[in-house]
Amino acid sequence: MKIQTLEWVGDGLRLLDQTLLPNDERYFVCTDVEVLANAIETLQVRGAPAIGVAAAYGVVIAAMNAGLSRRREAVAAAITRLRKTRPTAVNLFWALDRMASVADASADGELVTSLLKEAQAIEVDDFRRCEAMGRHGAALLPDEATVFTHCNAGGLATSGYGTALGVFYAAAEIGKRLRVFADETRPLLQGARLTAWELSKAGIDVTVICDNMAAAVMRQKNVDGVFVGADRIAANGDAANKIGTYGLAIIARHHNVPFYVVAPMSTVDISIPDGSGIPIELRNENEVRRGFGPNTVPESAQVFNPAFDVTPAELISGIVTEFGIARPPYSAALKKWMEAV
Amino acid sequence: MKIQTLEWVGDGLRLLDQTLLPNDERYFVCTDVEVLANAIETLQVRGAPAIGVAAAYGVVIAAMNAGLSRRREAVAAAITRLRKTRPTAVNLFWALDRMASVADASADGELVTSLLKEAQAIEVDDFRRCEAMGRHGAALLPDEATVFTHCNAGGLATSGYGTALGVFYAAAEIGKRLRVFADETRPLLQGARLTAWELSKAGIDVTVICDNMAAAVMRQKNVDGVFVGADRIAANGDAANKIGTYGLAIIARHHNVPFYVVAPMSTVDISIPDGSGIPIELRNENEVRRGFGPNTVPESAQVFNPAFDVTPAELISGIVTEFGIARPPYSAALKKWMEAV
Repeated sequence: MKIQTLEWVGDGLRLLDQTLLPNDERYFVCTDVEVLANAIETLQVRGAPAIGVAAAYGVVIAAMNAGLSRRREAVAAAITRLRKTRPTAVNLFWALDRMASVADASADGELVTSLLKEAQAIEVDDFRRCEAMGRHGAALLPDEATVFTHCNAGGLATSGYGTALGVFYAAAEIGKRLRVFADETRPLLQGARLTAWELSKAGIDVTVICDNMAAAVMRQKNVDGVFVGADRIAANGDAANKIGTYGLAIIARHHNVPFYVVAPMSTVDISIPDGSGIPIELRNENEVRRGFGPNTVPESAQVFNPAFDVTPAELISGIVTEFGIARPPYSAALKKWMEAV
Repeated sequence: MKIQTLEWVGDGLRLLDQTLLPNDERYFVCTDVEVLANAIETLQVRGAPAIGVAAAYGVVIAAMNAGLSRRREAVAAAITRLRKTRPTAVNLFWALDRMASVADASADGELVTSLLKEAQAIEVDDFRRCEAMGRHGAALLPDEATVFTHCNAGGLATSGYGTALGVFYAAAEIGKRLRVFADETRPLLQGARLTAWELSKAGIDVTVICDNMAAAVMRQKNVDGVFVGADRIAANGDAANKIGTYGLAIIARHHNVPFYVVAPMSTVDISIPDGSGIPIELRNENEVRRGFGPNTVPESAQVFNPAFDVTPAELISGIVTEFGIARPPYSAALKKWMEAV
């Protein structure tokens, strides 16, 4: 299973425009940093690991587009611009920091080559880490499993394999049979539009429910686990992920269903002791007011639209990383693995 | 505060078409049973108490439209048709049973007059009971309160005052200051479209959030209570209400926020011992697939669309009725009040 979310095509980064899914599978090539920054801001490319990879290629594009004498300056400007695209996912900053280090260590004439090599390494590395997470996570599932997921932590959110959905792909690859309930994930419906699209494509049984149906379904069905991705994990295991993840974790706990966060170590921000330090992006009210059609909130009413929430470590049964599955308390395992990255 | 949800206009029932809110405030007059049954099925009129009142007037319309010799037959056919419109809200069956009893006790020549009198009694009675619930519930709130609600249990869902929102109107009338968070309530967005519309109109501060944001907001804000309506309450206090209510109750309990169900005794079905016996309506998949615009779920994915869920009595802090506030265990109070109705 590999979803072609992003692909380096020699003079730019080819992206699948995720805002048009599931109705239209359209690709476009970014050859300009501003276009790429916009693609990240408007969620044409989204998902913490995919944002990191896309931003890394953005730095390559900046270097390629500048003359030799202004190349280093263009790289710095691109990094500054790309850092401002989205605040919560830490993989963005992690990838840009890697690109900045490589730029610092390279001679002017080698800048494009070494930056491209680093971006490609980040991409390939992400794919391999997702495969490793998938293997670790698949072991948590019985041969016939009913699982839940929220938002899209799939091939579309990474360099092609997925974190939470990578667990499902890995389980399917070793012959396990899955039934997946996918929360639609308001306001932008990444669960309905993206997760259902890629799981269907992979032949995995998927049923879309509105976010508010999760509790009723979990009470009725024998659910083996909830698997979600993460945008940033604090040192103690508190995990920021798409808004609604926290509520789903409370609902899982109430029904004694294990709740797993699946994320590579690039998502762990060891500098933040707990989730209260994670910045939460507030997005445009119109995502809620207009949905995908006419106005559905009266102009006279206010709207609150946080993009993420923080799930406290106490509600998380395990954090699945490329190194294995951390169990609570998380601090020691995350710290040890962080040093191994 | 009175919302003109429905009004008897001499030759028919004038209804506010709730499917067009908040963008268009359009009224139409039903002078035909089939049109009225359709209005209930398509949610042009919705909310358990309002459905009961509308159905009662539907029986009057049937009697008026039939010649004297076929009047009794027409009344029986209307009751049969209207009983099939929606399965979960018990107020519908309660109101139709009242109309059937009145028809049985009336001479042929008095049928229209006595049925109209009964329908009007049901309407006026509903309004007064909502006012009584409002008074009881308002006492639960401090002078400055932050409250949550789900779906629309307001003037639009009743004969004009509301159950859960009636508590907010009553609190505002005695000078309490409220901040209301209204879940948008997918798939049909009754919270965003209807609750935000009527609370704004009444000058009450309302903020719409997506259903999946409730947990994050409840963690951040000091919430004084969650108030919801009900479509059917079993003898033990288990309460069926719009899908998502159950999850919200779990989330409230996790944050130690009291969770109140506000409903008249006509919503209590003493014949059902607990919530497992309440029939849950499954609605058309397209409500989830299409939302209010283009397809947002791929054709290849399944959809599950239950309209209601059941909140177990153990998650309910109190049931606010027109007789007062029942506290757990609920069986005794509900039984006693049922006899007083």
